Amino acid sequence: MDKNNNFCVIMSGGIGSRFWPISRTSYPKQFLDFFGTGRSLLQQTFDRFNKIIPTENIIIVTNQKYEALILEQLPEINKTQILLEPTRRNTAPCIAWATYHILAKNPKANIVVAPSDHLILNEDDFLRIVQDGLNFVSENDNLLTLGIKPNRPETGYGYIQVDNKIDNKLYKVKTFTEKPELDLAKVFVESGEFYWNSGLFLWNVQSITKAINEHLPDIAIKLKSDKYNTVDEQSFIDESFPLCSNISIDFGLMEKADNVYVMLGEFGWSDLGTWSSLYDLSEKDSEKNVVLEGKSILYNSQNNIISLPKDKLVVVDGLDGYLIAQNDDVLLICKKDDEHTIRKFVNDAQVKYGDKFI
Amino acid sequence: MDKNNNFCVIMSGGIGSRFWPISRTSYPKQFLDFFGTGRSLLQQTFDRFNKIIPTENIIIVTNQKYEALILEQLPEINKTQILLEPTRRNTAPCIAWATYHILAKNPKANIVVAPSDHLILNEDDFLRIVQDGLNFVSENDNLLTLGIKPNRPETGYGYIQVDNKIDNKLYKVKTFTEKPELDLAKVFVESGEFYWNSGLFLWNVQSITKAINEHLPDIAIKLKSDKYNTVDEQSFIDESFPLCSNISIDFGLMEKADNVYVMLGEFGWSDLGTWSSLYDLSEKDSEKNVVLEGKSILYNSQNNIISLPKDKLVVVDGLDGYLIAQNDDVLLICKKDDEHTIRKFVNDAQVKYGDKFI
Repeated sequence: MDKNNNFCVIMSGGIGSRFWPISRTSYPKQFLDFFGTGRSLLQQTFDRFNKIIPTENIIIVTNQKYEALILEQLPEINKTQILLEPTRRNTAPCIAWATYHILAKNPKANIVVAPSDHLILNEDDFLRIVQDGLNFVSENDNLLTLGIKPNRPETGYGYIQVDNKIDNKLYKVKTFTEKPELDLAKVFVESGEFYWNSGLFLWNVQSITKAINEHLPDIAIKLKSDKYNTVDEQSFIDESFPLCSNISIDFGLMEKADNVYVMLGEFGWSDLGTWSSLYDLSEKDSEKNVVLEGKSILYNSQNNIISLPKDKLVVVDGLDGYLIAQNDDVLLICKKDDEHTIRKFVNDAQVKYGDKFI
Repeated sequence: MDKNNNFCVIMSGGIGSRFWPISRTSYPKQFLDFFGTGRSLLQQTFDRFNKIIPTENIIIVTNQKYEALILEQLPEINKTQILLEPTRRNTAPCIAWATYHILAKNPKANIVVAPSDHLILNEDDFLRIVQDGLNFVSENDNLLTLGIKPNRPETGYGYIQVDNKIDNKLYKVKTFTEKPELDLAKVFVESGEFYWNSGLFLWNVQSITKAINEHLPDIAIKLKSDKYNTVDEQSFIDESFPLCSNISIDFGLMEKADNVYVMLGEFGWSDLGTWSSLYDLSEKDSEKNVVLEGKSILYNSQNNIISLPKDKLVVVDGLDGYLIAQNDDVLLICKKDDEHTIRKFVNDAQVKYGDKFI
């Protein structure tokens, strides 16, 4: 397999509202360095793939307003490697554009599609399975997703049920399921047939083009063009992209296609979807508090997660299980496990004060 | 009585640590406008007395580091009306200096001494009693304090026990008592013999000079001088004031003198000593939350008091009875009624981070 045929698409257009107010529309989650490593989640994602994918084959799809941030955080890449969506859609239009863009550059491309804001702790294991996946899709016209063996009945993830075993870690996919209720999640985990859907996809450019044609014909009609890889690509996208429907690749394509496979891996993966998941992954003090950033003095306080600007001090007395998060001009204090309501907070703040605090 | 003999001494050197972090050493409580009236507590105190005392007879005693703040907040007064303590002492040295300063200007002076950070809701009633008090001390060589009829067994105030009744609102003082425990405070209130010690004192300059001589001889020796009202006053004070012992006028003088009287008044007084007292006095929303400043969206939250910078938003879900206070780079979250521990917080913050957050 020619390494130069391998491409990576990093989806980096999210606004990370579940991490508001640390994640703000002007500076969302993927651009933040939650663990104080010195590299943002996007930068970590880039660094990771750059070990096996040529730099010039790494494509970032994002919103137009994040262009400057991307260029600042990833000076290694060329401006032409950033695909700037004129409007927020979902993953299906995003992936369709990236597909047509890469197809025009290299019809033999093998592609790994990845979110920009996930955590991967065991990088070697991860890269090994991505490499195996790229090998698989370079030789097979199938769609591949990476599945994670669940270690708890997580209700925040989608699950993949496996069908026939192809080899030790490769299975045909039977069904995709949405985020389950706890009871169902427990059944899933006990059955041994269900794996977490990591949101990482691999395919060759021909098979994903074919699958888009077949399962997302509306998007295919709107985005197919001879303008890709020409100076007219962006203006074409600015016109056509907003016409695409807001639909996810999971719902619009993966759940419908019959040539979907899952490769199983264990590489310390988390989608960092919630403050609780961040809490679980972070180092705790003796009272089980996590202080991500900021200075703190805590009394009679346990099980909290705190993030303030570096130079600020917070003194807390008598809180158990809370999230205390401040960024710029917004302070949020709520039960750590009530984080599914953060979207409601964001919404209410917008209704009350406009975009000022969003 | 010649109005020009009436002087007011406003004590404005406190650091307001019980309101940390809203009150900071660099900008303490008396300079803040807690109720959004447009005037700080100091300015309100000045405005109030200025209605019955000539502007040039209002003396502010403060710490050297607050000179600029005083001049900024009270442009009406002359720099010579500000007495700048070179070091923090207690009320006895402060009042002794003001006494000698005024004595050198006007040996017939009648003086009302007042803290700069108290709240007085019924200004007319207050000024009437101050005027009556000034009349009394202009004609009698007695020391007078203003007593407040208690409406609850407050443990945060000192109490005055009355002795012989002189007239409807004037009594000889029997004893001063320190802040009592709750059980004792209840007995005090039920007895009808005890009144809150407001910390407001009235006397003529001769009788307080005599009392200082008698009860605070150490301070009298250190501060008596012919330098007052000359260009050498400040340099004399810079040398002598730090040698004075740290002692309150209550403990060092009022509790010892036998010519102390109390004038009773009801004028909506609070020493604004704690966040709880501020909470009690403030307007509440339907869930009994007080938001002094800052923007807020509250869910499932009751009985809280919140103060943030005006342009900041706080979102709170699930807190009952807390104080949430932020100023500059410090955020404090604690039980509203645990405020007696704020001094501990300040202390611990200083031990841990030096003066940065104090």
